[in-house]
Amino acid sequence: MDLEDGRVELSEGSGGVALPPPGGLRWIDLTSPTAPELELLRTRFDFHPLTIEDCGHLDQRPKLEEYRTHLFLVTQGFSSTGDKVEQLDLQELHAFLGERYLVTVHETPIAALEETWQRLAKEPKLLERGVDFAYYLVADGIVDDNFPILDCIADELEELEDSVLASPQRRDLQRIFELKHHLVAMRKVLSPQRDVLGLLAKRGDAHVTERTAVYLRDVYDHLVRINESIEASRDLLGNALEAYLSAVGQRTNEIMKYLTIMSAVFLPLAFVVGFFGQNFDDLPFVEDWVHSDLLMWGMIVTCVAVPAAMITWFKKKGWL
Amino acid sequence: MDLEDGRVELSEGSGGVALPPPGGLRWIDLTSPTAPELELLRTRFDFHPLTIEDCGHLDQRPKLEEYRTHLFLVTQGFSSTGDKVEQLDLQELHAFLGERYLVTVHETPIAALEETWQRLAKEPKLLERGVDFAYYLVADGIVDDNFPILDCIADELEELEDSVLASPQRRDLQRIFELKHHLVAMRKVLSPQRDVLGLLAKRGDAHVTERTAVYLRDVYDHLVRINESIEASRDLLGNALEAYLSAVGQRTNEIMKYLTIMSAVFLPLAFVVGFFGQNFDDLPFVEDWVHSDLLMWGMIVTCVAVPAAMITWFKKKGWL
Amino acid sequence: MDLEDGRVELSEGSGGVALPPPGGLRWIDLTSPTAPELELLRTRFDFHPLTIEDCGHLDQRPKLEEYRTHLFLVTQGFSSTGDKVEQLDLQELHAFLGERYLVTVHETPIAALEETWQRLAKEPKLLERGVDFAYYLVADGIVDDNFPILDCIADELEELEDSVLASPQRRDLQRIFELKHHLVAMRKVLSPQRDVLGLLAKRGDAHVTERTAVYLRDVYDHLVRINESIEASRDLLGNALEAYLSAVGQRTNEIMKYLTIMSAVFLPLAFVVGFFGQNFDDLPFVEDWVHSDLLMWGMIVTCVAVPAAMITWFKKKGWL
Amino acid sequence: MDLEDGRVELSEGSGGVALPPPGGLRWIDLTSPTAPELELLRTRFDFHPLTIEDCGHLDQRPKLEEYRTHLFLVTQGFSSTGDKVEQLDLQELHAFLGERYLVTVHETPIAALEETWQRLAKEPKLLERGVDFAYYLVADGIVDDNFPILDCIADELEELEDSVLASPQRRDLQRIFELKHHLVAMRKVLSPQRDVLGLLAKRGDAHVTERTAVYLRDVYDHLVRINESIEASRDLLGNALEAYLSAVGQRTNEIMKYLTIMSAVFLPLAFVVGFFGQNFDDLPFVEDWVHSDLLMWGMIVTCVAVPAAMITWFKKKGWL
Amino acid sequence: MDLEDGRVELSEGSGGVALPPPGGLRWIDLTSPTAPELELLRTRFDFHPLTIEDCGHLDQRPKLEEYRTHLFLVTQGFSSTGDKVEQLDLQELHAFLGERYLVTVHETPIAALEETWQRLAKEPKLLERGVDFAYYLVADGIVDDNFPILDCIADELEELEDSVLASPQRRDLQRIFELKHHLVAMRKVLSPQRDVLGLLAKRGDAHVTERTAVYLRDVYDHLVRINESIEASRDLLGNALEAYLSAVGQRTNEIMKYLTIMSAVFLPLAFVVGFFGQNFDDLPFVEDWVHSDLLMWGMIVTCVAVPAAMITWFKKKGWL
Repeated sequence: MDLEDGRVELSEGSGGVALPPPGGLRWIDLTSPTAPELELLRTRFDFHPLTIEDCGHLDQRPKLEEYRTHLFLVTQGFSSTGDKVEQLDLQELHAFLGERYLVTVHETPIAALEETWQRLAKEPKLLERGVDFAYYLVADGIVDDNFPILDCIADELEELEDSVLASPQRRDLQRIFELKHHLVAMRKVLSPQRDVLGLLAKRGDAHVTERTAVYLRDVYDHLVRINESIEASRDLLGNALEAYLSAVGQRTNEIMKYLTIMSAVFLPLAFVVGFFGQNFDDLPFVEDWVHSDLLMWGMIVTCVAVPAAMITWFKKKGWL
Repeated sequence: MDLEDGRVELSEGSGGVALPPPGGLRWIDLTSPTAPELELLRTRFDFHPLTIEDCGHLDQRPKLEEYRTHLFLVTQGFSSTGDKVEQLDLQELHAFLGERYLVTVHETPIAALEETWQRLAKEPKLLERGVDFAYYLVADGIVDDNFPILDCIADELEELEDSVLASPQRRDLQRIFELKHHLVAMRKVLSPQRDVLGLLAKRGDAHVTERTAVYLRDVYDHLVRINESIEASRDLLGNALEAYLSAVGQRTNEIMKYLTIMSAVFLPLAFVVGFFGQNFDDLPFVEDWVHSDLLMWGMIVTCVAVPAAMITWFKKKGWL
Repeated sequence: MDLEDGRVELSEGSGGVALPPPGGLRWIDLTSPTAPELELLRTRFDFHPLTIEDCGHLDQRPKLEEYRTHLFLVTQGFSSTGDKVEQLDLQELHAFLGERYLVTVHETPIAALEETWQRLAKEPKLLERGVDFAYYLVADGIVDDNFPILDCIADELEELEDSVLASPQRRDLQRIFELKHHLVAMRKVLSPQRDVLGLLAKRGDAHVTERTAVYLRDVYDHLVRINESIEASRDLLGNALEAYLSAVGQRTNEIMKYLTIMSAVFLPLAFVVGFFGQNFDDLPFVEDWVHSDLLMWGMIVTCVAVPAAMITWFKKKGWL
Repeated sequence: MDLEDGRVELSEGSGGVALPPPGGLRWIDLTSPTAPELELLRTRFDFHPLTIEDCGHLDQRPKLEEYRTHLFLVTQGFSSTGDKVEQLDLQELHAFLGERYLVTVHETPIAALEETWQRLAKEPKLLERGVDFAYYLVADGIVDDNFPILDCIADELEELEDSVLASPQRRDLQRIFELKHHLVAMRKVLSPQRDVLGLLAKRGDAHVTERTAVYLRDVYDHLVRINESIEASRDLLGNALEAYLSAVGQRTNEIMKYLTIMSAVFLPLAFVVGFFGQNFDDLPFVEDWVHSDLLMWGMIVTCVAVPAAMITWFKKKGWL
Repeated sequence: MDLEDGRVELSEGSGGVALPPPGGLRWIDLTSPTAPELELLRTRFDFHPLTIEDCGHLDQRPKLEEYRTHLFLVTQGFSSTGDKVEQLDLQELHAFLGERYLVTVHETPIAALEETWQRLAKEPKLLERGVDFAYYLVADGIVDDNFPILDCIADELEELEDSVLASPQRRDLQRIFELKHHLVAMRKVLSPQRDVLGLLAKRGDAHVTERTAVYLRDVYDHLVRINESIEASRDLLGNALEAYLSAVGQRTNEIMKYLTIMSAVFLPLAFVVGFFGQNFDDLPFVEDWVHSDLLMWGMIVTCVAVPAAMITWFKKKGWL
């Protein structure tokens, strides 16, 4: 099997056919190819114009298209750096899988592809399993890159749920929304990706041997698990949101309680002191008592007893 | 292939059959035809009365009906003008696809159809691919017109989410509802449209050649992506709504806090000043101190210290 | 084809078979038949006891049952009078469709059936298309009666959404719930109705000719559209409900703001006037100034400045 | 056909086979059988150990298991007494349906089974239709017992919705939750029950004759309708819950309004009377007017005019 | 049949094949095997490298993979200790099911496996039913361990619903979220587990005999019931959450009512006592009455009558 950089290969000879010699295998890899390079690809391998058009711009959806001499595969996955999932990078690989050749086209470097390339260069025996096995190795790497992202999101959701219940912050809410954006984006891509690999793993023809299909079923299993994790995370995201809203409501409640207690304590007091501030010359009972300390002390005791009684009552009602 | 304006063609001869000469292809296009024109169509091409009835009024749903000599296709999509999606214009195309003829009927001008017509007039070689390829070109254009609308809605939703969290406005809520109306309308049309094109792309018969079917599968892929985008946008619309409601709740919270602080500061003060406004001639402690500055200064200090202590405590509780 | 009132026909001869003469067609219509009439029907046409039992009471669900000599069809739809959808009337038609006879049984008069009867009486040529075509005409009428109801509900929902945002009324909420009741009732009936007609339109046998099946597919298309409209309306009903709840919350918000402003303006003023109402004989600064206008004017200015400052500040915060 | 009480039958002979004589039919019914009785059943009829184990304890799910000589059927439904649905009683019937025998096992008496038993005893001609027809009669009774429960729940939901909007009570909320419990329990049982009868009605073999299958399809239809009613009720239950929450929110609103009006009326008045309670010896304008009635009357007019103006303004804003 | 500890067996001979002698059956069990042990397994039984890789780490999903000489099965379930479900322990069993051998691999001890092992050691006759029956016994035990967990959760949910309505506590909310986490985790595992057993029970080949398939259908039935219980519990969990939120809202309501009543009672009183605290020398009506007891008694009566009237009115409005 030849591992060749696409640019070299394509410019090598002019007008010649890029197919490998009989009995040989060839893998050509192109990173962000120019329009003339894509045109060369089309003419040498006789690829369908629509697939070449697809290679020209990203943002396709995962798909499997069958042509007479090859399969056209769009494979997608996400990668992310850092402890928290801030930015999801979409990895998109376009692959033409013939019986004896594999042509891969991508815009940005894909780590999984790079590793596979190195590994195949070191272990030539692996090459003998065919180009479909090489595709499996790359697809497996792209798919497995999604696991840490989902674990990360699930962990963060659990933390968010707890921290939000303790003290709800607006940035927690924004974070919840961000995670929902991530999950929606992942589901949009990885749900069709699962179907594509399920289809591919069921084949047993010239392009995908029975032996490789067993391995592809394993990738399919991973994708099924990934999609179930996405659904589970979306479910739990609802928890975090409910926790936020409930904690905000609880805080309003707490403030209300404080306000009520303030009013309950001071409004009666205001009445008591206001009562004795009236301009009557002689209140019948004041008449006799106004000079006595009894009435005054009674008033002072009232000023202490009323709030004390109220607070005791609130405590019994469980408001404090 | 003949490109002919329907009116001309139909009125040309009377009673004659509108089929093209052997080996030829014919595309007849009718814009908002009158009842007699439709009747002429029915008699010359022997179309089914129900399809003619359908052509008479818009608001059908996308469908594919098979007749002995032709397929009857209703194709729908949306277009919109301006940066923000204010008004969705439904584009509806009724097409009769025979082996060697294509009859298209529509009420309003369709940009994609106009472009295809011009392109075919300039590149006669394209015509040789058959009338099904002409239909593909029109359908592809109608479908692709939906992408900018969805991108626009997705962008606006993300903006709305942020702006609403900062300061919720009633017109934001109205906008969220408008976008939901748009998404509901698009899903109602584009979900059956996807199924119709999926069906069409799977055929391989006299009406749709294998060669064109490859292209129609591409349109089908676009429709799948469009429908996934609609679902994703509906999901994120929930985010914007939650953000709005949560921001309104937060604002109530903020007002409550302010009210509570006002009450907490001034209610105790009102008690203090009311206490010394009472009409007792001689309060035992006032008796001695009323002329002294000590009591008065104590009262003034209280008036400053109580609010200061309250505000400090609120700050510690995180309310300010 | 004979159009005959069921009662006449059934009582005509006794013991005879009700089948039409060879080459003839017969349509018998029975409105709210009595038990003996149904029994006569059973014996003359040899209908299954369960179908006769079904005819005896309404509130079946749409269904299609196949017997050796005929199909038994329950067809349902809704009609409504007036501009607003106040009351949904269920139309239920039980039909026995044989090769050369059609027996229809219903409790209340059905407008669509009445019209078809009149039309067939006037245009005898239509009869030659068979009894299945007569059934199509009736079913088409029953199904199409649902469209104005749904359009009506969709329009009202849009109005409700706007009016509720402007000023939420409890009767709006009741109306929203009523519309949901209507939509739930319609979906419960029209979703199985769609499946029944889909099944019927796919047949091509002695009971339903290929020619009529084309027309029944059209009715099926209408039912698909109706069901999609129901789903869309249910979606938008959520909008109206959210709008109501959000508007009520907003109103609480508004009242809160007013309350806060009142408190913010008058609580400080109450403190100021209370301060000068204290019974100190000589406040140090009052001592000198109490007779001067300066202190008094300062107090009056405070009484004006504090509210003015507060209101300015609230305006800046966007609360007014 | 022999109708025999299981206990009698099983203890009759020892070691003998319980199959009916050729040409005869036998129905054995066992109410809460003991372990030895079940063991006898197993040995005489050669039933599978798992089915005997199932008969030993209730709380199976509806199922249909096929064995060489018989079908094993678990049939479930609910019954309830009283006007309101307080308690749902699960009816569970285990049936072994052979070609010429029917063995039914249940824990508690089942009304539908009792009735069928009496009816068959009275009308021997019904027996000739086979043991599968006897099973149909019992199953039909068990299924039809669910209808009044669902009607009852639907009626109560509609009442709840209205009563809750008028005055929300906590016990209404508890009732809503109870009804949800009932609906969840019913769906859990009756949804698989529908599938089991759908399967049974499609058979046409030695155990279920074509003639009986027609009747079983009728039971299946009833179960489809029941399941649709459950879904519809669950939908409308959401209405009742929304109504409750909205009514509680509305009540908070009303209380808030009252509080605001109280504050708005009395806070300004408190300021007015406080203003004239100040201890200035000579207010410039008071100086001249304090002895005049004009100022005092002005104050009294203010005390009446301010609240009047406020209340007028609130009425215009629609708060009263 | 030989029951052998995997370690013994694998280290016994070197290089030999681990298959049982003709006519014999062998079950090898390995608990947390080391990498060399797994490698030995691979070489002796010729297992696929991917399955050996799977055995190396837990957290697979339930699956069934078919190879030429054996089936590879991943079986999962949950166990829990204590009255309340605090911690779910995932039980994961990897099994290789050949015609005459069963190899089971697991990390932690599995109670159900241990029991089966003991039972087979005691009842040698059970062994004759084949290795597939041994697998059934283990799988049945693993699946049945889930029932008590679900019953426990359902009971706790019902309790939570009641206790939350009476007095909502934040830890109730946290408990509701924990239960949701448990249910999401269980559904993620047991829903694919159901599908795997459904597939296995439908087989009738060398690996799973028809006789055992009957028993596996029983396990499948249990899994269907378990999944229905999970769905039902998720439904009712919504009840508990609604109850919590509604009870919190109700408490806010109650506090509001108290606050309003306090204000309603004391604000008018504050006005009354403030009115008579004004510094007018002679109020026209006071002039004459200020020394009379009439006015004063009227004031005192007002102070009692106003609150009494207010409280009576609130009682009539149902606020108290």
